[in-house]
Amino acid sequence: MKAITHIEQSLAAALALGEAPGCPPKLANAVRHAVFPGGARIRPQLCLAVAHACGNDDPLLADAAAVAIELLHCASLVHDDLPCFDDAPTRRGRASVHWAYGESLAVLAGDALIVLAFQTLGLAGGQSPKRMAEVLGVVAKGVGMPFGIVAGQAWESESRVSLTAYQRAKTGALFVAATAGGALAAGADPKPWVALGEWLGEAYQVADDIRDVMADPSLLGKPVGQDLALGRPSSAIDLGLGGAIAYFEKLVQSAIDSVPECTSREAMRQLVRQESERLVPREACDKFRHVQAVQGDTSSVKGVAA
Amino acid sequence: MKAITHIEQSLAAALALGEAPGCPPKLANAVRHAVFPGGARIRPQLCLAVAHACGNDDPLLADAAAVAIELLHCASLVHDDLPCFDDAPTRRGRASVHWAYGESLAVLAGDALIVLAFQTLGLAGGQSPKRMAEVLGVVAKGVGMPFGIVAGQAWESESRVSLTAYQRAKTGALFVAATAGGALAAGADPKPWVALGEWLGEAYQVADDIRDVMADPSLLGKPVGQDLALGRPSSAIDLGLGGAIAYFEKLVQSAIDSVPECTSREAMRQLVRQESERLVPREACDKFRHVQAVQGDTSSVKGVAA
Repeated sequence: MKAITHIEQSLAAALALGEAPGCPPKLANAVRHAVFPGGARIRPQLCLAVAHACGNDDPLLADAAAVAIELLHCASLVHDDLPCFDDAPTRRGRASVHWAYGESLAVLAGDALIVLAFQTLGLAGGQSPKRMAEVLGVVAKGVGMPFGIVAGQAWESESRVSLTAYQRAKTGALFVAATAGGALAAGADPKPWVALGEWLGEAYQVADDIRDVMADPSLLGKPVGQDLALGRPSSAIDLGLGGAIAYFEKLVQSAIDSVPECTSREAMRQLVRQESERLVPREACDKFRHVQAVQGDTSSVKGVAA
Repeated sequence: MKAITHIEQSLAAALALGEAPGCPPKLANAVRHAVFPGGARIRPQLCLAVAHACGNDDPLLADAAAVAIELLHCASLVHDDLPCFDDAPTRRGRASVHWAYGESLAVLAGDALIVLAFQTLGLAGGQSPKRMAEVLGVVAKGVGMPFGIVAGQAWESESRVSLTAYQRAKTGALFVAATAGGALAAGADPKPWVALGEWLGEAYQVADDIRDVMADPSLLGKPVGQDLALGRPSSAIDLGLGGAIAYFEKLVQSAIDSVPECTSREAMRQLVRQESERLVPREACDKFRHVQAVQGDTSSVKGVAA
């Protein structure tokens, strides 16, 4: 079975837990809307790929780690789209949860997804509850205070923000949870896998910044130009689009180089390459560079986005 | 040490986990505001009392269960006070979190508290990770879908609601998590303790309904008359104030009667009595009955609240 099909099935099984008869129907629908159809599922793919590279001797736990991380990612999207944050009417190319179900159910759907993530992990400790507790610790660290994605989002409410701290928390933390959690689920040392999560997480955030100003909503599945409009920290604003693209490519190379020695090292590197191409297609970068070279364009991204 | 002091210290230790240097300061402050100063801490008290009654042979796990349940309760209050729900400017007699820190940080503080609750449990599996996983399951069940407090809140968005299903989920579920979680943390069978949580939870919800129409904000620490204003299910509206008071007293007696045989049975019953007196002081009930008898007043609670 393809990894992505396996992940979709595991996510469906996790949701079935909460959707038992007796659940308020709108809440169940809102939660389902938040999870299906999904995006690229890169975090659970990464988690399972690392678990596989480490022997994957407790596949139920690795699956639960992958599912928990994706559910937490979905929860963060639902809450980030709320009117008090991005007020985004669309996500993944269709109505955002609060747009489809109202704000109350969007808040509750996010909450329910966070709970379901940890519940899923708790149920997967059959073979090794001790290992499950370690995975839970790494996943919680990637989501909560002081350095997880909730903290990353909270940096947007502060007047003084370090771009690196912001990006590490807002996106990098859950990627680190994916790689370290995958290793831990397979009983391996998570440390050698932390760097891959960090580089990839930062690359992902820079890609998001780039896509936010490249003004192609079909690529992004959500409104564009939000970073500038909302005054959010953005590498594409700080470095200009050309600088951000160069930085993204450097980060992807660092991610590839960081993959530790393992039997599936080449497959893992290939996954990183594929993902980077999906995030910021090389063709789009080349096109941008070509236009820049022809026009001698040195305009900042503020000019591009305006 | 008094139980309540012990609980405050355990909560402070849990919060310290998330408040490490590097945490966005406003988020850390909003989370602290949500937890301190607290209310009666009845859920963690109940959890620890049951653990004690069952031998409490893993006190770190019992403490973690108590803390997790209180953090989840605090999270639910923060989110319930949001503009899209109650839009309550006050809670526990002072500004609600969204009033003090803004809506974004209130959403994030609630999220961070949910994560911290499960993280706290995950860290308490040192003596028995298997038992910790069981406690986590019971706690998650009390919070998430289909029957936990998130589902309870979601019933408010449905057009057809069973008052019993609503109350069981909105309040009862976390009380059951407290009693069953306390028993499980001590390695005991949780089943004999479920009824206590159910009765007490329902009593608590009915007390909240009563207090909502008794129109004394100093007793409630939050705005009054909200149930009627927001069209929420309420036993005080359905049964009238006199009927609701009688029902509350019946529920408290059922809770007292349900305490299973154990060494500290009388202490546990005393805790329930004390809590019921705190929730709906007998003096206030007697005063209401006296007024009713003198006036031959048969007005419904809608008349009282109007």
